[in-house]
Amino acid sequence: MRFEVGKNPEGIRSGLLQTRRGNINTPAFMPVGTNATVKAMSPDELREIGAEIILSNTYHLYLRPGHETVKNLGGLHRFMNWQGPILTDSGGFQVYSLSALSDITEDGVHFRSHIDGSMHFLNPERAVEIQAALGSDIFMAFDECTPYPATYEYALNSLRRTTAWAKRCKEAHAKIYPEDAIPPAIFGIVQGGFHKDLRRQGAEGLMETGFDGYAAGGLSVGEPKGLMYEMINHTAPLLPEDRPRYLMGIGDLEDVIVSVEAGFDMFDCVMPTRNARNGTLFTSKGRVSIKRTEFKDDPGPLDPDCGCYTCRNYSRGYLRHLFLSREILSMRLNTMHNLYFYLEFFRQMRRSIKDGRFGGFKARWAEGINIPHTRLKS
Amino acid sequence: MRFEVGKNPEGIRSGLLQTRRGNINTPAFMPVGTNATVKAMSPDELREIGAEIILSNTYHLYLRPGHETVKNLGGLHRFMNWQGPILTDSGGFQVYSLSALSDITEDGVHFRSHIDGSMHFLNPERAVEIQAALGSDIFMAFDECTPYPATYEYALNSLRRTTAWAKRCKEAHAKIYPEDAIPPAIFGIVQGGFHKDLRRQGAEGLMETGFDGYAAGGLSVGEPKGLMYEMINHTAPLLPEDRPRYLMGIGDLEDVIVSVEAGFDMFDCVMPTRNARNGTLFTSKGRVSIKRTEFKDDPGPLDPDCGCYTCRNYSRGYLRHLFLSREILSMRLNTMHNLYFYLEFFRQMRRSIKDGRFGGFKARWAEGINIPHTRLKS
Repeated sequence: MRFEVGKNPEGIRSGLLQTRRGNINTPAFMPVGTNATVKAMSPDELREIGAEIILSNTYHLYLRPGHETVKNLGGLHRFMNWQGPILTDSGGFQVYSLSALSDITEDGVHFRSHIDGSMHFLNPERAVEIQAALGSDIFMAFDECTPYPATYEYALNSLRRTTAWAKRCKEAHAKIYPEDAIPPAIFGIVQGGFHKDLRRQGAEGLMETGFDGYAAGGLSVGEPKGLMYEMINHTAPLLPEDRPRYLMGIGDLEDVIVSVEAGFDMFDCVMPTRNARNGTLFTSKGRVSIKRTEFKDDPGPLDPDCGCYTCRNYSRGYLRHLFLSREILSMRLNTMHNLYFYLEFFRQMRRSIKDGRFGGFKARWAEGINIPHTRLKS
Repeated sequence: MRFEVGKNPEGIRSGLLQTRRGNINTPAFMPVGTNATVKAMSPDELREIGAEIILSNTYHLYLRPGHETVKNLGGLHRFMNWQGPILTDSGGFQVYSLSALSDITEDGVHFRSHIDGSMHFLNPERAVEIQAALGSDIFMAFDECTPYPATYEYALNSLRRTTAWAKRCKEAHAKIYPEDAIPPAIFGIVQGGFHKDLRRQGAEGLMETGFDGYAAGGLSVGEPKGLMYEMINHTAPLLPEDRPRYLMGIGDLEDVIVSVEAGFDMFDCVMPTRNARNGTLFTSKGRVSIKRTEFKDDPGPLDPDCGCYTCRNYSRGYLRHLFLSREILSMRLNTMHNLYFYLEFFRQMRRSIKDGRFGGFKARWAEGINIPHTRLKS
C-alpha cells in the first residue's frame, strides 16, 4: 500500500492512498457497511456518489454469515458486489459495545453473540484470520476499546494488552502473507483512554512494531467534546507523518474539520446512514427532520444546493410522505442524500486543502451549517 | 385512449393500449404502488425492468398524504417521479378490506381509517374527484366488492349499487373533463359475486353507461379456485371485444395464463413484491424460500436463467445472508428479481401470442414451474 501525502501552505494534510483495489483520496470518508451492505444502498449507487472505500465489520460478519461462508462465496468483495477497497475493523469495539457479556483475558476476549447468545472467542490471531478470510484490503489490529471514564491504572493495563495484541496481529498477518505477495495493509490502533502520556506510549508501542497505517480508537465514547478535541489534537502528531491516520468512528462534520486540522486522514461513521433512516437529513442550511408538518405541501427539493438523485427528483412533500408511510424508498432516498452530502463535503474539503483555502472552508461551514453535538456509535 | 387488440390463430388476445402517457402492451402486468411507491423500487428501476404502467391506491393516498397534497405537489406522476401511465383503483376494495368499520348506504360508504381511526366518506363523485386530483391516467369506478360467500339477494342488491355508482362515476368524470380535452380513461367494474346471471347483468349495466375499459372485481376473495376459474371464463366474454379487460388483483401466474386464455388483458397483484419482502422468490424452476439453509454457501445466482440485476450480480448465499440480517438491500434485490420475473413472464407470453404459440407457452410453464395456490390480496 502506497500513501502519498503532503501539507498545504496552511499545514493541512491531503493525499492519495493507493490500495490493491483502487485509490482513495484523503481526507476520506468511509461509508459503513456493517453486514456486508451499506444499509439501503446498492454498490452501484455507492460508486455513483463517489465512495472510494467502505468499512465492514469483522464482528458482525464473523457471527453472521460466518467468515468461512464469505470466503466460500469468493470473499467479501464478490459476496457484496463491491469491487473497491474495503477496510475491516477488528471486532475490538463491538465485543464490548454490542455483546451482552465480554470477559477479557491476556489472550483475548470471550463474548456472547448479540444475535443468539452463543459464546465466542476473539483474539489477535483469530481477528486476523477472519479478516484474511473476508479478503479485506485494510485490516485493523485487534484492540481493547478503553471505556470512559477509566482510571489511569485500568487504562494502562488495557493499553498494554492492546499494544501486545497489535504486535501479535502484525505477526499473524505476516505469517499469512509472504513477503513477495502484495499483501493487504494492516493498521494499528492507539488507545490509552484520556491520559496523554498513555496515548503517547500507545503510539510508540505501535510504531515499534510498524504498521501500514495508524488509527486512534477509544474516542467519542461518552467524554465531553472539549476533552475529545484535546485528545484528537494530542494524538495526531504522535503518529508517523508519512502513514495514513484514521480516526475511528468519528463523523460529525464539525468534528471532522477539527480532526483534519489536527492531521487525521480517514474517517468512518454511521451518522449519515443511521440519521437518514431516522428521517434526519443533512443540508447546506443545517439538519432537517423530514417529518416536519411544514413540509407537507412543499414542492421544493430537500436542499436546493444539492446535486444528489434525491434532490434532483423528489420534493420535500414526497420525502415526508414516504417517511411517514415507513416506505423502503424513504430509507433509500434519505440515505442516498445523506451519503452524497457527506462525500460532497469531503470532496469540497479536499479541494479547499489543495487550493490552500481550508481556513475559508472551515469558516464557511461554521457559519452556514448548524450540526448539533449528537453522536452515534458504529 | 386508443386500444388496438386482436386475436391470434389460437384465439388469444394481445394488443396495444395507448394512453396519454405512453403505450402499454397487453396482456399487461401492473406493479402495485400503494403509497405512491412500488415498495423497495425506484421509478428508474421500474422503467429499466420494463414496467409500462403501475397501479396506485386511491384509498391510501386519500388518507395519506391526502389527494389535495398530491395535487399541490404537481400530481401523482410528479410526486412519485414516475412519468409512465398510472391506473388508480377507486378505493372500493380497501374500504371493506382494510377499514375496521364500513357502513354502506345507497349514496356511498362511511369508513374508519386504518391509520388513525378517523371517520371518512367515499362515494362515486368523491372517488372520481380524488382520482382527478391525483392526475390518474386510468380511473376505476367506485364499486362494492361483493364478499364471498354472499346470498343471491345480497349480491343482487350490491350489484345494483355498483351499477348505479358506476353511472354516477362516469357522469362525474364527464363533468370534470370537457369533451374537447384528452381526458383520462375510466373503467367500470363488473361485480355480481359468483352468480353467473348477475355477472351478465353487471356487464350489461356497465356497457349501457359505456366505459373506456371493463374490469372484473370480486374474484380471488376466498372462493375455491375452480369457482374462480369458472367466473373468469364466464365473465370475460360478457365484455366488449374492442375494449381492454382488466382482471383485478389476480396475479398468480397460473391464474394469469387461464385468464389470458379467457380473454383478459390487464392484471395487477402484490404477489411479486410482497413475496419478495418475505423472502419468497420466483424462479424458472418454481418458488424458492431464500432463507433455506442449503443456500448458506451457495455461490450460484438465484435463477441461472434470469437476466435481472440481482441474478447477474449476487449469489444465493448473499441473498440468504441479507434476508436473515433483515437488510433493506434484501428487500430491494428480492423485489427487483420478482418484478423482473413477472414482467419477463408477460413479455414471453405476449411474444408467444404474437407467434401463435401460446399453447406451447402454457404447456411449458405448466411443466417447468410449480406455483402453489397461495394468494395474496392487494
